[in-house]
Amino acid sequence: MNMDGDYAEQLLVDFAERTKVQLVGDSQIPLYHQLARVLQKFIQNDFLQAGDRFPSEEAVGACFNVSRPTVNKAIQELLADGWLNRVRGRGTFINKDPHVQLSLLNDKLSLVEQFPRHKFKYRLIHKRIEAPIPRINQILGLEPDEPLLYLRRLRLMDEQPLLVCDSILPAERFPGLGEHPFVNGSLYATLDQEYGCPVLRSERSVEASEVVECEVATLLNVPLLSPILLLTGIAFAEGDEPVEYIKSYLREGVSLKSTVQRKPT
Amino acid sequence: MNMDGDYAEQLLVDFAERTKVQLVGDSQIPLYHQLARVLQKFIQNDFLQAGDRFPSEEAVGACFNVSRPTVNKAIQELLADGWLNRVRGRGTFINKDPHVQLSLLNDKLSLVEQFPRHKFKYRLIHKRIEAPIPRINQILGLEPDEPLLYLRRLRLMDEQPLLVCDSILPAERFPGLGEHPFVNGSLYATLDQEYGCPVLRSERSVEASEVVECEVATLLNVPLLSPILLLTGIAFAEGDEPVEYIKSYLREGVSLKSTVQRKPT
Repeated sequence: MNMDGDYAEQLLVDFAERTKVQLVGDSQIPLYHQLARVLQKFIQNDFLQAGDRFPSEEAVGACFNVSRPTVNKAIQELLADGWLNRVRGRGTFINKDPHVQLSLLNDKLSLVEQFPRHKFKYRLIHKRIEAPIPRINQILGLEPDEPLLYLRRLRLMDEQPLLVCDSILPAERFPGLGEHPFVNGSLYATLDQEYGCPVLRSERSVEASEVVECEVATLLNVPLLSPILLLTGIAFAEGDEPVEYIKSYLREGVSLKSTVQRKPT
Repeated sequence: MNMDGDYAEQLLVDFAERTKVQLVGDSQIPLYHQLARVLQKFIQNDFLQAGDRFPSEEAVGACFNVSRPTVNKAIQELLADGWLNRVRGRGTFINKDPHVQLSLLNDKLSLVEQFPRHKFKYRLIHKRIEAPIPRINQILGLEPDEPLLYLRRLRLMDEQPLLVCDSILPAERFPGLGEHPFVNGSLYATLDQEYGCPVLRSERSVEASEVVECEVATLLNVPLLSPILLLTGIAFAEGDEPVEYIKSYLREGVSLKSTVQRKPT
């Protein structure tokens, strides 16, 4: 931990110089909000750690050539979003806690093992039978007239929303799924233990996106058009049977980690 | 391919109903731009494929309760960004080509193998020796006073920008790196063949972010504060020696794919 404000101020000057960030005065996005987004990127980068002192309002203003009220509004936004915390009489400090790193393996156990002092849970938001969707029926290897089961879940860590997960499954393959709580709160444990259908492999892809759906914005507690990580994928059971079409929305500050091992050549 | 406009219109109505998208009239973001972002998500979802006919302007207007000029401006934006293409006398069609899926393995070969008819290349944007950065020196296992080599590259597919990749390496470990073209255009091939230092493992994490740096926006040809996928990571050589700190910015429409195999329990 680095409690010296000068250190953070030097890093901020370096960051601004290095990245050549420019705030746009005549943009449709208010200046304080642009500044908050820039400062959030400064907090998120690897140069600082949780507990480090944040630069003074004067230093931030001088660095980006903006007024004190603008800096103050930006810092209020970062305090509200949990990127900073203020200790009365001591100053403003980096708070990296909102940044959560999930394993790409996405099994509940690994998450619990990774953050043993935190509480994770799912909340089932929607469960309904839907009419077939040609592309999805094709992906799931279903006849064109087979109905689909749609589940929307919200995943929380210590009551804070992490991600919204939409699952589409063959409705007739899993009768009654979602009518009772999942085994250990896990969809995959339920498929395995109640339907004899363990998920063995999963193809995922991630990309940058924005929140356009009101319900997703509300569930994740972020504004519409906020940046999100969109994860789409297909889960396969034995015999490469596709059993789940997945679409997850991860809010900013939640990252997915993976390790890549190169095959010896 | 589905050439029937009614089909796409029904899908759009379903999409709007399912996702309960709402355009915000009094937002600081213009209505046509909000609509363009929503329609882009509709194009990107898995219900449609390249070559399918896009719904008529009337149908889009009725679906989202907006005027024809607003719809037209949104569609112009999508045409300009390459999400749609218009064939004179025939109509407007889905164009999913801007969507590129990269392997998380990020080795040049796999990308070339995956898209054999496309041309990939890197452009070196910056190469400079930088003063130590405490956190990065620590990550790379360097003494506090050791200088760093900073490389910024732009990766292009058929001359279209895909991602900006920042690499920070120990400057003294790789003298002269970046002064000559990379072996086969690959940094890792160069580390391997010219410095006897093959990269064997890489830890990566991805998260949602926004473009705050002007140069990154310019290189990727996207507006400031556009959503991007931020990939950060560390590459390791033999003996778990950390040799590269990585930060990549992937524009919307570029996704990272991975397959997860569950260990038998």
